[in-house]
Amino acid sequence: DFLRALEEVHPLFGVSEEDLERCVEGGIIHFSPHIDKILQNGRDFINQVRTNSTPLLSVLLHGPRGSGKTALAAKIASESEFPFIRLVKPVDLVGMNEIQKIQHLSKIFTDAYKSPLNVLVLDNIELLVDWVPVGPRFSSAVLAAIKGLMENKPPKGRPLLILATTSERTVLQQLQLNFNMQIAVPNVNTQHELAHVMRESGAFADADVERAIGEIEQTTGRREIGVGISKVLLCVQTAMQSREDRTGRFAEVVSEAVAESVG
Amino acid sequence: DFLRALEEVHPLFGVSEEDLERCVEGGIIHFSPHIDKILQNGRDFINQVRTNSTPLLSVLLHGPRGSGKTALAAKIASESEFPFIRLVKPVDLVGMNEIQKIQHLSKIFTDAYKSPLNVLVLDNIELLVDWVPVGPRFSSAVLAAIKGLMENKPPKGRPLLILATTSERTVLQQLQLNFNMQIAVPNVNTQHELAHVMRESGAFADADVERAIGEIEQTTGRREIGVGISKVLLCVQTAMQSREDRTGRFAEVVSEAVAESVG
Amino acid sequence: DFLRALEEVHPLFGVSEEDLERCVEGGIIHFSPHIDKILQNGRDFINQVRTNSTPLLSVLLHGPRGSGKTALAAKIASESEFPFIRLVKPVDLVGMNEIQKIQHLSKIFTDAYKSPLNVLVLDNIELLVDWVPVGPRFSSAVLAAIKGLMENKPPKGRPLLILATTSERTVLQQLQLNFNMQIAVPNVNTQHELAHVMRESGAFADADVERAIGEIEQTTGRREIGVGISKVLLCVQTAMQSREDRTGRFAEVVSEAVAESVG
Amino acid sequence: DFLRALEEVHPLFGVSEEDLERCVEGGIIHFSPHIDKILQNGRDFINQVRTNSTPLLSVLLHGPRGSGKTALAAKIASESEFPFIRLVKPVDLVGMNEIQKIQHLSKIFTDAYKSPLNVLVLDNIELLVDWVPVGPRFSSAVLAAIKGLMENKPPKGRPLLILATTSERTVLQQLQLNFNMQIAVPNVNTQHELAHVMRESGAFADADVERAIGEIEQTTGRREIGVGISKVLLCVQTAMQSREDRTGRFAEVVSEAVAESVG
Amino acid sequence: DFLRALEEVHPLFGVSEEDLERCVEGGIIHFSPHIDKILQNGRDFINQVRTNSTPLLSVLLHGPRGSGKTALAAKIASESEFPFIRLVKPVDLVGMNEIQKIQHLSKIFTDAYKSPLNVLVLDNIELLVDWVPVGPRFSSAVLAAIKGLMENKPPKGRPLLILATTSERTVLQQLQLNFNMQIAVPNVNTQHELAHVMRESGAFADADVERAIGEIEQTTGRREIGVGISKVLLCVQTAMQSREDRTGRFAEVVSEAVAESVG
Amino acid sequence: DFLRALEEVHPLFGVSEEDLERCVEGGIIHFSPHIDKILQNGRDFINQVRTNSTPLLSVLLHGPRGSGKTALAAKIASESEFPFIRLVKPVDLVGMNEIQKIQHLSKIFTDAYKSPLNVLVLDNIELLVDWVPVGPRFSSAVLAAIKGLMENKPPKGRPLLILATTSERTVLQQLQLNFNMQIAVPNVNTQHELAHVMRESGAFADADVERAIGEIEQTTGRREIGVGISKVLLCVQTAMQSREDRTGRFAEVVSEAVAESVG
Ligand SMILES: Nc1ncnc2c1ncn2[C@@H]1O[C@H](COP(=O)(O)OP(=O)(O)OP(=O)(O)O)[C@@H](O)[C@H]1O
Ligand SMILES: Nc1ncnc2c1ncn2[C@@H]1O[C@H](COP(=O)(O)OP(=O)(O)OP(=O)(O)O)[C@@H](O)[C@H]1O
Ligand SMILES: Nc1ncnc2c1ncn2[C@@H]1O[C@H](COP(=O)(O)OP(=O)(O)OP(=O)(O)O)[C@@H](O)[C@H]1O
Ligand SMILES: Nc1ncnc2c1ncn2[C@@H]1O[C@H](COP(=O)(O)OP(=O)(O)OP(=O)(O)O)[C@@H](O)[C@H]1O
Ligand SMILES: Nc1ncnc2c1ncn2[C@@H]1O[C@H](COP(=O)(O)OP(=O)(O)OP(=O)(O)O)[C@@H](O)[C@H]1O
Ligand SMILES: Nc1ncnc2c1ncn2[C@@H]1O[C@H](COP(=O)(O)OP(=O)(O)OP(=O)(O)O)[C@@H](O)[C@H]1O
Ligand SMILES: [Mg+2]
Ligand SMILES: [Mg+2]
Ligand SMILES: [Mg+2]
Ligand SMILES: [Mg+2]
Ligand SMILES: [Mg+2]
Ligand SMILES: [Mg+2]
Repeated sequence: DFLRALEEVHPLFGVSEEDLERCVEGGIIHFSPHIDKILQNGRDFINQVRTNSTPLLSVLLHGPRGSGKTALAAKIASESEFPFIRLVKPVDLVGMNEIQKIQHLSKIFTDAYKSPLNVLVLDNIELLVDWVPVGPRFSSAVLAAIKGLMENKPPKGRPLLILATTSERTVLQQLQLNFNMQIAVPNVNTQHELAHVMRESGAFADADVERAIGEIEQTTGRREIGVGISKVLLCVQTAMQSREDRTGRFAEVVSEAVAESVG
Repeated sequence: DFLRALEEVHPLFGVSEEDLERCVEGGIIHFSPHIDKILQNGRDFINQVRTNSTPLLSVLLHGPRGSGKTALAAKIASESEFPFIRLVKPVDLVGMNEIQKIQHLSKIFTDAYKSPLNVLVLDNIELLVDWVPVGPRFSSAVLAAIKGLMENKPPKGRPLLILATTSERTVLQQLQLNFNMQIAVPNVNTQHELAHVMRESGAFADADVERAIGEIEQTTGRREIGVGISKVLLCVQTAMQSREDRTGRFAEVVSEAVAESVG
Repeated sequence: DFLRALEEVHPLFGVSEEDLERCVEGGIIHFSPHIDKILQNGRDFINQVRTNSTPLLSVLLHGPRGSGKTALAAKIASESEFPFIRLVKPVDLVGMNEIQKIQHLSKIFTDAYKSPLNVLVLDNIELLVDWVPVGPRFSSAVLAAIKGLMENKPPKGRPLLILATTSERTVLQQLQLNFNMQIAVPNVNTQHELAHVMRESGAFADADVERAIGEIEQTTGRREIGVGISKVLLCVQTAMQSREDRTGRFAEVVSEAVAESVG
Repeated sequence: DFLRALEEVHPLFGVSEEDLERCVEGGIIHFSPHIDKILQNGRDFINQVRTNSTPLLSVLLHGPRGSGKTALAAKIASESEFPFIRLVKPVDLVGMNEIQKIQHLSKIFTDAYKSPLNVLVLDNIELLVDWVPVGPRFSSAVLAAIKGLMENKPPKGRPLLILATTSERTVLQQLQLNFNMQIAVPNVNTQHELAHVMRESGAFADADVERAIGEIEQTTGRREIGVGISKVLLCVQTAMQSREDRTGRFAEVVSEAVAESVG
Repeated sequence: DFLRALEEVHPLFGVSEEDLERCVEGGIIHFSPHIDKILQNGRDFINQVRTNSTPLLSVLLHGPRGSGKTALAAKIASESEFPFIRLVKPVDLVGMNEIQKIQHLSKIFTDAYKSPLNVLVLDNIELLVDWVPVGPRFSSAVLAAIKGLMENKPPKGRPLLILATTSERTVLQQLQLNFNMQIAVPNVNTQHELAHVMRESGAFADADVERAIGEIEQTTGRREIGVGISKVLLCVQTAMQSREDRTGRFAEVVSEAVAESVG
Repeated sequence: DFLRALEEVHPLFGVSEEDLERCVEGGIIHFSPHIDKILQNGRDFINQVRTNSTPLLSVLLHGPRGSGKTALAAKIASESEFPFIRLVKPVDLVGMNEIQKIQHLSKIFTDAYKSPLNVLVLDNIELLVDWVPVGPRFSSAVLAAIKGLMENKPPKGRPLLILATTSERTVLQQLQLNFNMQIAVPNVNTQHELAHVMRESGAFADADVERAIGEIEQTTGRREIGVGISKVLLCVQTAMQSREDRTGRFAEVVSEAVAESVG
């Protein structure tokens, strides 16, 4: 009945395929050549696994909070059109104890091994091992399980691509949670990139873009932006709420974000 | 029966709507323009969520103990007239173990997702994660749950505003418990503001107000007050108990509070 | 059956009303004006709650070990003649686990809320949270429960006065266990106060009192006493056991206590 | 059934009255006036409790390992001829968990409260609270229980004398485990005292005694002995095993013990 | 039923004999005389146990990650053709609690003792004791079990060779997990060795080999390689994916690996 | 059923009398006068207990790993021909939890108390208390149990000799695990002693012995050996496997062991 009990463990929140879509709701804006390269790399990994030349490949997308790691991983995974695609995120494990988490993760791997081509997205993998910055603490049992599962060679003919994301890369190194490949996901870093995003959003005229950029530089006293795409898009949204000077409001909130990222 | 058991978990104390009202029993005194701005911001957040332009918005009200954080959050929430408004406070979780707390919190979120418009007030959120200053200690499991729940995008058409309060903002930063917006709630800081509260209380004549202010400055040797609105109102109450010199008694107890806040 | 089990939790030792009386068995000797002031303050608190002007008032009596904190709190509580008076002391929780302790404490509060006027005496509150000086250690779960229960506003018309005692005030500050009011309980500090206690005890003639005081000063080389009323009364008892020189014996044992308190 | 289960807890080893006797199997040798004073003090405590002038008296016998603390406590207790005498020693708690230990100790106190006159001997009280020197560690739950039980006033007419022993007095102070009275138990410290023990043993002629003392001084290069009575008696036993020079053998093994106690 | 429950513990993943084969899927390339010596030593150990001259022999293969420890241990074990050969690897213990892990490991040893000749491969033995680098942490219960099992002499006529692998040799020393013999497994360290691997792979012409070596030296600025055979073989695979300049691609990815190993 | 369950606890591996014999399989080589003295001491302890002059005697054999502690303890125990002889070693406790270990150990003592003459061998006693060097960690519950059991006087007429072994003497001192007597077990330390072992082994001619000694001195550059008898005998075994120069091979492997012991 221990085993039966374990089988009965269900995540509190669904893991349906629409999860993947929701991760790229904000679309993918090609604000920098890095974005294209990341997606190209992703397609290469997919092919490498599809041809079974490497039956097990683990890739880590790392970068600042809100830089778009999850969206990019989801994009790569969904474009693969592999029969088994699964997104695992921290909230899925909420309310489980260590044993249940391990059983849940194990089941995802064994489910994958029933399909001929597989992609797993392990989102915010540092939180999957219950890592918290104070202490620091983490679940060494879940860590050992993920490590064991990630290094265990799949059965013949069941190649598996693992895409993991993290904003705590050094933590993973300290935990010796290793990956075959690593990809850095950048912030919106230059004025040029910011302008690109503004234009793509369709919410600003060219003059607005220039004015906003100028105001941000003046307010913050610096040309570097260093804000995640996720926050930039939120700033656009916020600015749109303004009934008067949307461009001014955009410059204002982006400036705050720039200041915060420096501070 | 594990799941059934979890469903049976009830807080020791009720969470009825009158809870919200009790939080603003002392009313809201507009002793400073900050108060108006906080309430305006609150109305903006409500609208932003109501129009579904941002389906998930988390706001932190932080400030010294007794500065009125809970009252302001309750005010904003109850003015929204959203169909689902819920106040979660530490005593609600008393007597539960970690799993039960997580289950209780999860249920509140899933309950919210059944309603088209939602506000959650997470009061003293640092205590919700069982934080205690010595050690320091906290429940990393409950922290992970709250983090996961707070960052999990609501289902389509179920926008959610989260209002959290804390007097331990740096703790939240250390725990990487992040919010989209932050609002500082101030103490009663100036003589002018204190005079405002005294007058609003209807318990003092104008001459009394001036005399009290003068005596406080003389006793404490300083013009800054730096006492929470909650304590100031208690001082009014205490003074009212005095059968003789209410103004003098008020000056006395406020002076003690000023000294304590400096000490 | 979890709830049922919890209801079945009973303290190992009775908590009948005679408990309160036993705490003041040694009577209250008014050896210093502080004692009168403390009792007056106590009566004021009782009235403040009785008139419902403050529905929840928490007061901490702090002072050295044996200074009479428990006796004074018991005195104030029993003089109130409130329908619900309850003394909670560490030994009541012996043999309970954390959950049972929390449940026991919660039940005391909910019991109180059934009565129109309530006093709770939380004796040695630092031990109620399982505090031990080495480590230091304490039960953060019980601490959180007591904190939550003490800050939770009572239902309408159920005003509550909480009288807590401690000889570890700085510990409570570190644990952020806050009170609305604090009262310091003093030792028997001066020769004058010691003489007062000796006379009140009816065991010594006036000449004896003077002689004892003189011998103590000579033996210890200091005029300050700094011994708790509880220990002084024990010294009287011990001296009474002597079949010969009771005064000399009293001076001897008090001198030892003075030396120990300095050491 | 929780309570029933607790009642069923029995110590692994019997606690019959013959336990007390076995503690003084080696007799009491009056090798120093301190021994007489300790026994006299013990009789005084017994009387003080017997006359109910002090209904609760706790006394700590502290001293080096093997100095005779347990034997003296057992002697005092058995001479009292009180109807309830109970020896509690660490091995009695072996195999119990914290709850069972606390229940076991609580039961001993409640058993005592059924008798009109009581002595409890808490042997090696630091081990009763599971103290171990590395860490250091101890059971804060059992500590809290013993503290609570030891400070809890007995019911009317059930006076109780608690005799505790320890070779770790500073540990008890750190744990704030307090006693009303403290008695130091000494080692066999002088040549004179050692000679006394040798003679009392009936195993050595006067010349042997002198020779042994001389050889010990020569071997160790010091006049101080500093060895527990328990070890000295073992040395006598060992020497008796020797078929040849018993005095020489005695000097040899005592010298080793002296060296060890210095080292 | 405790025992029955323990017997029912099964690893999440099978431990069939094909496990051993999968470990040497990449073959054994004799890129250095060390490889031959390791295999010869392995054969010697097998014989020593086969002749029962040493009924219990434990050997540790240690070296950098990916240096081929598992492949070599599997090779030695499978060449023995002993009736009982068993590979134990960390993922086998995933989802078990401490007791179950210990029971699982114990059962493997007792199973072995039913066969006349036995080899056990304990792969990544530091992970078998749940070691994680942060803290550091490990399961002292499983460690004690493995230590006890590894030092326990087999029954008569049941000689046992234990081959353990680790990339954390100093950890094992700190844990006092001792072995009778230790063998160091090297990386591909020299240009000569790298050339050997390239040629053996059959994927490069002699001119390609020379060119690649030259490019790697130029890119990295160093003649030492210091990359595990496992990574080198992955580089070959990756290069084969390239449709154009496979040699250049090989040089590129090996150079990255060299840089990483130095970094 | 708690007690019943405890009674059902059985060690994973048998503890039959042949265990003792297996410990001295390598025989006892009298390579040094210390060996004779240790065995003579052992016989004395046996007699001392047999005559009931000391009803409880605990002896610690301490020395470097592999120095022969277990073999000597087993030899002494088996020569006693006492009706109850029991060897307790760490692997016996594998798979038990703390309570079960304590129960297992308690049962061994109570079993002993049914026999008129008893020897217990507690092998590697530091591991019996679950000590691990990192942390360091140990089971304070099992430690307390062993301490309590070892200091508990046996019932009348059930004298008990406890022989414990350890290679971690300072650990035992830190844990305050005390013994009545201590015996140091030496390594094979001198060339003379090594020669003795070689000759006794019957595998080398006198010339071989001299040559080996010479080569070892030359290789290691030192005259001291400092290798446990256990390792020396393994070196003999290994050398015997060599088909050519057994003496040279012996010198080689002993030299390695010498170097390692110095290192
Ligand atoms: N080039 C881009 N790359 C990634 N995301 C993009 C890009 N352009 C637009 N987006 C949008 O930006 C958002 C990126 O947020 P996302 O949650 O993926 O960031 P993240 O790095 O995973 O954040 P976190 O650190 O909180 O996990 C998504 O809504 C995505 O649709
Ligand atoms: N401008 C104001 N802002 C907030 N509260 C006010 C204001 N004016 C009056 N009050 C009253 O002051 C009290 C504020 O107490 P409240 O419990 O909200 O403070 P808090 O900051 O949440 O305290 P704590 O740090 O203990 O949680 C309430 O009774 C409220 O009705
Ligand atoms: N003025 C006084 N104030 C308090 N207690 C007094 C006074 N006069 C006499 N007593 C007697 O002194 C004793 C005080 O002991 P009490 O246990 O109350 O001290 P305490 O400070 O609570 O000690 P502890 O720190 O151990 O809790 C009581 O027996 C009480 O009757
Ligand atoms: N004057 C004495 N005082 C105490 N014990 C004595 C005296 N004379 C002889 N003895 C004998 O010496 C022994 C003292 O040992 P005991 O176990 O009481 O010492 P202990 O201080 O309790 O040791 P431990 O520190 O190990 O608990 C007993 O056998 C006792 O009969
Ligand atoms: N000479 C060799 N020695 C070992 N492995 C070799 C050799 N030649 C080729 N190989 C192949 O290289 C790979 C070595 O990987 P392996 O997993 O054994 O390394 P490892 O040191 O155990 O790695 P890890 O540190 O991750 O456990 C295997 O696929 C093996 O077939
Ligand atoms: N003089 C001797 N003393 C002890 N053992 C000897 C002696 N001569 C030969 N031997 C053999 O040497 C071996 C000693 O190994 P043993 O396991 O007793 O050492 P140990 O000190 O207990 O090791 P460990 O520290 O690993 O417990 C045994 O096989 C024993 O038969
Ligand atoms: Mg993300
Ligand atoms: Mg608040
Ligand atoms: Mg008190
Ligand atoms: Mg003792
Ligand atoms: Mg490996
Ligand atoms: Mg041994």
